[in-house]
Amino acid sequence: MDITLIAAAALTAAEVLAAAPDSDWRALEPARTLYMELASGRVVIELAPAFAPAHVANLETLARARYFDGLAIYRVQDNFVAQWGDPDERGAFGEAKTSLAPEFTRPLRGLPAFRRLPDADTYASQAGFVQGFPVARDAKRAWLVHCYGMVGAGRGNPADSGNGAELYAVIGSAPRLLDRNVTLVGRVVQGIERLSALPRGTGKLGFYETAAERTPIRSLRLAADLPEAERGRLEILRTESTTFGRLVELRRMRRDDWYKEPAGRVDVCNVTVPVRDMPAAAGPAR
Amino acid sequence: MDITLIAAAALTAAEVLAAAPDSDWRALEPARTLYMELASGRVVIELAPAFAPAHVANLETLARARYFDGLAIYRVQDNFVAQWGDPDERGAFGEAKTSLAPEFTRPLRGLPAFRRLPDADTYASQAGFVQGFPVARDAKRAWLVHCYGMVGAGRGNPADSGNGAELYAVIGSAPRLLDRNVTLVGRVVQGIERLSALPRGTGKLGFYETAAERTPIRSLRLAADLPEAERGRLEILRTESTTFGRLVELRRMRRDDWYKEPAGRVDVCNVTVPVRDMPAAAGPAR
Repeated sequence: MDITLIAAAALTAAEVLAAAPDSDWRALEPARTLYMELASGRVVIELAPAFAPAHVANLETLARARYFDGLAIYRVQDNFVAQWGDPDERGAFGEAKTSLAPEFTRPLRGLPAFRRLPDADTYASQAGFVQGFPVARDAKRAWLVHCYGMVGAGRGNPADSGNGAELYAVIGSAPRLLDRNVTLVGRVVQGIERLSALPRGTGKLGFYETAAERTPIRSLRLAADLPEAERGRLEILRTESTTFGRLVELRRMRRDDWYKEPAGRVDVCNVTVPVRDMPAAAGPAR
Repeated sequence: MDITLIAAAALTAAEVLAAAPDSDWRALEPARTLYMELASGRVVIELAPAFAPAHVANLETLARARYFDGLAIYRVQDNFVAQWGDPDERGAFGEAKTSLAPEFTRPLRGLPAFRRLPDADTYASQAGFVQGFPVARDAKRAWLVHCYGMVGAGRGNPADSGNGAELYAVIGSAPRLLDRNVTLVGRVVQGIERLSALPRGTGKLGFYETAAERTPIRSLRLAADLPEAERGRLEILRTESTTFGRLVELRRMRRDDWYKEPAGRVDVCNVTVPVRDMPAAAGPAR
């Protein structure tokens, strides 16, 4: 048996990641990164215009108009979602639209590179990643899927009643039954615990019963609209990279001092997309 | 088209549940129900001796010896687990065993009735429910699976190093990669939010960095060891019942004023097993 191959197989995920060239990483683009500032700190959301261009554009308009500043997280339902926006629906959309055609799925034509996972997915014929986002597809369409940390645009009963002014983040077991029923707009890449550890609402569907229980939103801004010194320096591992493919394989075949029986399979919502702070040498001077 | 069939199909999950005969429900058995008392209230855990008889017996011995009283929840890792026991490993196991053969899986022979789900499972050839617990199986063995709220016996690197003295509950996206690598002992049937909404630990793997951050455990007791007046009156819908089968089908084919596109499939960790307070008339006199 080839000793080199054994050694390669024994690399840990941390070692694979440490060996990745800087080109396997990409900085979050300020123009498609949202910062939601809470008293507890910042929640960083990467937007997915490749899947929900109209909702993302509307959300950017709302953020620029400071629509969310002073609003609140008003619903936290255990094992489901934390939701924020304007519980009193006072309006003031300014130039933003109040209703949008649903963007539940998108055509395959023009879809950026799809990193397909090799294992069966309960809910779709294929599952994998596009630009860091968990995605499912069939023969004609692709869609973002409801994994932990995904952010969607709440809507009422009409399919076109979402607009990006009411947002939710998944804080429980992947609610895949929502897939293709609501427009997902992005993913929390840092700070999800500022939402997932909030007290659960005791009203129906996890709504808080009093305004005092809500968590105020200090501001919600596009990173591009902040001075550079106030922006974070996060990088995401490219899910198209060979390194990411190796990490997926290590996760499927995980066997180490603790793991005895590798699953040999992995679900799209059980794969973590690595995030890091940009190495200091590669960052801009401050 | 048959009007009656349309009406039947239009029944909501709430209506199906309301129409269930009392015989579709079973009371939690005090002899296999644990109450963990925190300052925030009670966490109710149903034990699964059909899958982990030795671990459950040891855990009962520990509970009877009041092993857990005054110990703490000392690890909360976001999107993974809350873990409790003795962070200082002071010991004092009394009559309980300190190591147990793993009970990661069990033979099919003698397995109680298996409610199989009709859809593909990423991790196993079949998935479904046994006595209210999420279960997967292959041609030879069956095992409890790591859905939200499942409770397991932490262990060190040796497979036989678990003993029930360190427990964890799943508080995030179902970590199915743990299946068949650790002994699951039961499921939180009420009060999981008292664990899932705890502050996340900032140390490695979500351990709290200071003792002050831990959540003390006032007591952990078998319901059977409490006076009847202090016991809860919870009932679980029998997963063997026709009613449960109908609920699963409604969930797979969910279409209502809000849901536009039924998934047509369901994952074992996306099925909720209904819990209710025993109807007053059926309960013991107090």
